[in-house]
Amino acid sequence: MAEILKGNVVAKQIKEKMKRDIEELKKHDRIPTLAIVRLGDNPGDISYEKSIIKNCDDVGIKSVVYERDVNIKTEELIELIEELNKDNNISGILVFRPLPKHIDEEIIRNVISPEKDVDCMHPLNLERIFEGDMDGFAPCTPKAAMEILKYYDIPLEGKNVVVVNRSMVVGKPLAMMLLKENATVTICHSRTQNLEQITNRADVVVVALGKAKFFDEKYFNENSIVIDVGVSLDENGKLSGDADYGIVSPIVSKITPVPGGVGSVTTSILLSQVVLACKNI
Amino acid sequence: MAEILKGNVVAKQIKEKMKRDIEELKKHDRIPTLAIVRLGDNPGDISYEKSIIKNCDDVGIKSVVYERDVNIKTEELIELIEELNKDNNISGILVFRPLPKHIDEEIIRNVISPEKDVDCMHPLNLERIFEGDMDGFAPCTPKAAMEILKYYDIPLEGKNVVVVNRSMVVGKPLAMMLLKENATVTICHSRTQNLEQITNRADVVVVALGKAKFFDEKYFNENSIVIDVGVSLDENGKLSGDADYGIVSPIVSKITPVPGGVGSVTTSILLSQVVLACKNI
Repeated sequence: MAEILKGNVVAKQIKEKMKRDIEELKKHDRIPTLAIVRLGDNPGDISYEKSIIKNCDDVGIKSVVYERDVNIKTEELIELIEELNKDNNISGILVFRPLPKHIDEEIIRNVISPEKDVDCMHPLNLERIFEGDMDGFAPCTPKAAMEILKYYDIPLEGKNVVVVNRSMVVGKPLAMMLLKENATVTICHSRTQNLEQITNRADVVVVALGKAKFFDEKYFNENSIVIDVGVSLDENGKLSGDADYGIVSPIVSKITPVPGGVGSVTTSILLSQVVLACKNI
Repeated sequence: MAEILKGNVVAKQIKEKMKRDIEELKKHDRIPTLAIVRLGDNPGDISYEKSIIKNCDDVGIKSVVYERDVNIKTEELIELIEELNKDNNISGILVFRPLPKHIDEEIIRNVISPEKDVDCMHPLNLERIFEGDMDGFAPCTPKAAMEILKYYDIPLEGKNVVVVNRSMVVGKPLAMMLLKENATVTICHSRTQNLEQITNRADVVVVALGKAKFFDEKYFNENSIVIDVGVSLDENGKLSGDADYGIVSPIVSKITPVPGGVGSVTTSILLSQVVLACKNI
């Protein structure tokens, strides 16, 4: 049976550090504050928002929700973000994505001040990740995966790490973070041939296809370390990762569960970036 | 004996297309013009400059050299670049690198107008490459490697491509270009373990360590397609690629020579980006 790489202990450690940083900031009358920009009332957004607010409360970050109509004009959204950029009481800005179709994300992500861009949407922050400069803001999901690898002391230097995802929110930034740790990185995707062979040769496999239970026992062996970033609903409407956990967890070396793995670290990464933004002001 | 993937025919094709574009631009009284900013008189820079000017002349691009003292102050260099940014007669700006040590490249690359940044130094242009948007300016060397692969009809979709380099001028942008073509990409570097095994499993190997003759027969097999980006001097002071050409070329499937391979395409990529800049004004 694999060692289960739970996320809650990782999140807890990040939060403990964060609390100390926040206490220090409060001594200087600075309160880390997150502005949440939500358009419309999609239930998924509202549930995510509640979880963020609760997490903010837990650690002592102030959160302010800016709810706007889903039909907001691009100019109005830009105006709101520019106000938040200027507002010295706001440390970080989180704009819920995906945006409604009539709003061009390309415009919006360029409007957010790079200094308050805690969700790492701005091209200048993403370019720093491309360069291997990990001192600024990073996309939360790949950073959460890295924190799990670090917490559980999983060696990366010179190791073969396979990332099955090439998006800008997971695969590409994660590949850059892994390179920074001197891993040899293979980026796979839907067009990859012989994926089973490739994942079987890897020391660490990060799966993020978003296809419930896609990866079964064929893809792994007793040495595999599996980081499962996928979150989707299986045939019974149950939350499931990309790995078929029931089949895979008995045979691999280590695996993150879903739920309770990478996803449970993501919010604490977001919050730690609000604290970082507050420190940097 | 391997098929030799010569660069000259690739460069020629790019130049032919460029000439037609330039004729079209000239009909509208627009002359693509490259500003070359050179600090000091390093012989390597001067020789590269001569080659660029000759190539510009060949295709009908105007080139203007801005030679400044190697001890130029950062503020003076910024002022020069800002003038070139504003000058409507200048389509593209090339600043020779590396810059003298007292000048911070990070500052300079942010000063160049992204619209005139034909050498792809500006973070916003590099971020587009990270995103997989290949319609703008690209670093010339990886783009040259891609043009060679394209010219010789080497399939990339679903293929395993290994890149031995993780720099911002070669490896990382090349990995993004290869992903865009749906290759499965592995990025290797000095800390990679079992490099021989990894290169032997690849369909295409791009080597760019800058170590003359580093890659011998152990790294390749009869199916290997080798793109050699390395340029350095061997033990006899002769220009050499990363691959030990005499040993490797008889056993692999295809290989680019050094000199005469990737390097002979690079300048035509630069010039095509000057034409692109002129078109976009």
